[in-house]
Amino acid sequence: MTQMINSKFKLEKSDDLIFMTASRAKKAIEKYGKDNVIDSTLGTLFDENEKFVALDTVYDTLKYMDKDLIASYAPISGTNEFIQSVIKICFEEHKPDAYISASATIGGTGAIRNIILTYTDEDDYVICPNWYWPPYKPITTENNRNFLTYELLDTNYKFNIEEFEKALDKSLENRQRVVAIFNTPANNPTGFSIDDDSWDKILEIIKEKAKDDTNKITILIDAAYMEFAGNGEQKKFLEKFSNLKENILVTIAYSMSKSFTAYGLRTGASIAISSSKEVIEEFEYSQNTLNRCTWSNGVHSAMNVLVELTNNKETNKAYRKEIQEYRELLRKRAKIFEEISKEIGLNILPYFGGFFITVLCKNPKEVAKKLEDKNLFIIPNERGLRFAVCAVKLAKCKKAPYLIKETIDQING
Amino acid sequence: MTQMINSKFKLEKSDDLIFMTASRAKKAIEKYGKDNVIDSTLGTLFDENEKFVALDTVYDTLKYMDKDLIASYAPISGTNEFIQSVIKICFEEHKPDAYISASATIGGTGAIRNIILTYTDEDDYVICPNWYWPPYKPITTENNRNFLTYELLDTNYKFNIEEFEKALDKSLENRQRVVAIFNTPANNPTGFSIDDDSWDKILEIIKEKAKDDTNKITILIDAAYMEFAGNGEQKKFLEKFSNLKENILVTIAYSMSKSFTAYGLRTGASIAISSSKEVIEEFEYSQNTLNRCTWSNGVHSAMNVLVELTNNKETNKAYRKEIQEYRELLRKRAKIFEEISKEIGLNILPYFGGFFITVLCKNPKEVAKKLEDKNLFIIPNERGLRFAVCAVKLAKCKKAPYLIKETIDQING
Repeated sequence: MTQMINSKFKLEKSDDLIFMTASRAKKAIEKYGKDNVIDSTLGTLFDENEKFVALDTVYDTLKYMDKDLIASYAPISGTNEFIQSVIKICFEEHKPDAYISASATIGGTGAIRNIILTYTDEDDYVICPNWYWPPYKPITTENNRNFLTYELLDTNYKFNIEEFEKALDKSLENRQRVVAIFNTPANNPTGFSIDDDSWDKILEIIKEKAKDDTNKITILIDAAYMEFAGNGEQKKFLEKFSNLKENILVTIAYSMSKSFTAYGLRTGASIAISSSKEVIEEFEYSQNTLNRCTWSNGVHSAMNVLVELTNNKETNKAYRKEIQEYRELLRKRAKIFEEISKEIGLNILPYFGGFFITVLCKNPKEVAKKLEDKNLFIIPNERGLRFAVCAVKLAKCKKAPYLIKETIDQING
Repeated sequence: MTQMINSKFKLEKSDDLIFMTASRAKKAIEKYGKDNVIDSTLGTLFDENEKFVALDTVYDTLKYMDKDLIASYAPISGTNEFIQSVIKICFEEHKPDAYISASATIGGTGAIRNIILTYTDEDDYVICPNWYWPPYKPITTENNRNFLTYELLDTNYKFNIEEFEKALDKSLENRQRVVAIFNTPANNPTGFSIDDDSWDKILEIIKEKAKDDTNKITILIDAAYMEFAGNGEQKKFLEKFSNLKENILVTIAYSMSKSFTAYGLRTGASIAISSSKEVIEEFEYSQNTLNRCTWSNGVHSAMNVLVELTNNKETNKAYRKEIQEYRELLRKRAKIFEEISKEIGLNILPYFGGFFITVLCKNPKEVAKKLEDKNLFIIPNERGLRFAVCAVKLAKCKKAPYLIKETIDQING
């Protein structure tokens, strides 16, 4: 046949694992009934009635929004109000002493993609711990950058600072730019957060490399789950990005998907923190150009929702209450899953918040397949299984560890 | 200073001409009153009360949509219903005899970008008539493709088939792939549509080049203004894309922005037409990969609006009535502008529909600047002025040609 697509296209012909598994779970629910199926596939929030959660404060604001404010274009970088508000709600009282700017994007994905494309040249490295959200890799490699992973945890289940340093060293051999992704707090798929001590060590190493002015190091924090990782104190590490040398840039991929249950409204922001005003201006122009050349404008209505929920005291209070309720629910679910896992010897990675817990096991694909026979649907990865506390109600979080343990023992002996 | 952005970034540091001019118009309105200002800047529809138009059928559907259908993720290529519906509403009864598929995108921009990236290699050419929507160029060049324009019209104000052939020849010298953009029907900024005879000639030339199996030729139709260019008959040319050789691919960048007054909801589709099933499968996989690596999913609520308005007979009828009303309004405004222009000797390009009419003149920037002193705000381009019939009410469409003619005479003597 004639290949019409370009010669360098790295086609990913696989069907989407998560959506395929979710559709099998749906069929099982139709056949066996809701009570007999555990659906731990999707990364979206479900309540204790197993109903999809769409926050009232978000969708009431949208329902009563003037239709002109939904229909009309937002400026390419986002409305000024959105830019100011996203910075306000992202940092709260933990703003670093630095210049900060933001630009609207299509979802967290759009921010991650824009930042990688802006701050690396072709063949440069993007480095990332080895427990990561799978799309990081094709975002990097389809754009002709190298993707290099390193071990996330040391033997004490702390951030593996040595392996990070090795990866950073390798990425700067004969090269000038690197983007280091940290999906924290509340990593997907593990629920792990980098603690403040580890952040100090990370910054120490980066500052050392940045003594060489030709090195240009960009930190990229994927903050998708930040609102579900604590009561505000989880943002304290952001203060550490004060007064860094101008060849160290800190960026944040902000997403409304989880924090506003606005997955389908596709709105996020790329945020930049720098001690140099010029670097921030360069950021603004580059994001504007990339937006224009990729999707033009962002979703106006979602921007307006964020502005309203950030600045209107009453709605902000109601919104925070809703978020807190679900954060506590996630914590309860995770706690029971952790406790039972410990009790029965199921090996899980440390959880600090967010939508997922990871179970370590051999032959994860086989285990996941076998679990489907028992009507538990779960996403396997290279070294384990991703259990979605966001999607599974308490009673089933109690039941799941036993099923998983039993199945791992069956498969791996 | 340290340049943090990558070394190949072609930064566009200019502020957005259209939004800047629009903001000056807004200030003039505040100062002199609505009645004394003609604002022909934005490419959005305003009614005879000079109010922004957001179609009732679209925004009522959104207002009463189940919030879960707004909040949740759509699949990466769009929901199946959206894919089927966008094909249905785009072609109506003018489907060619071919395999057809579609993939959701972020706006028309996202579709244009995806198609260019998929069907050209680096350094290949994207060719386009010289009256074009300005972002085509940076979308092409920021992605390291070459942008080549050719004269749109011949001396009879018909599509310039000879210049098209020259551009196509040049683009295939020592290269295998080319994307040829046609912003038709109802080109931005001229309102020009390629007629059926010209389409026959275009296809004849392309078929000749496609005899060489190594040539892979992609037609990209930017159909942003298609619904405002006729009563259905303007889609007849789509039938011509039947039974083409498999190294000729026809693609459409479909946009909800204008046809649903859904600019701020950022939803469109890339559509592919081919006689080869494999080429269409390749299209589906490649669009899925590009979506995943750029913005992940599309805007679920907008997809649902299109599905409802396409398939629910009653809402579809109401929607068609709304569209027809505004199409006729545009035609009335354009007609009066054309008639007066002819009468007073203002040189305009042929208008067949859409949001804009182009006035030809020398020194367009100076003319536009001088017009602002007379409170007429208009967008200059390289060879003329873009008058927005979409944004200017009838009474002002009557007044504008005189002001423009007078000012051109003042500047150019």
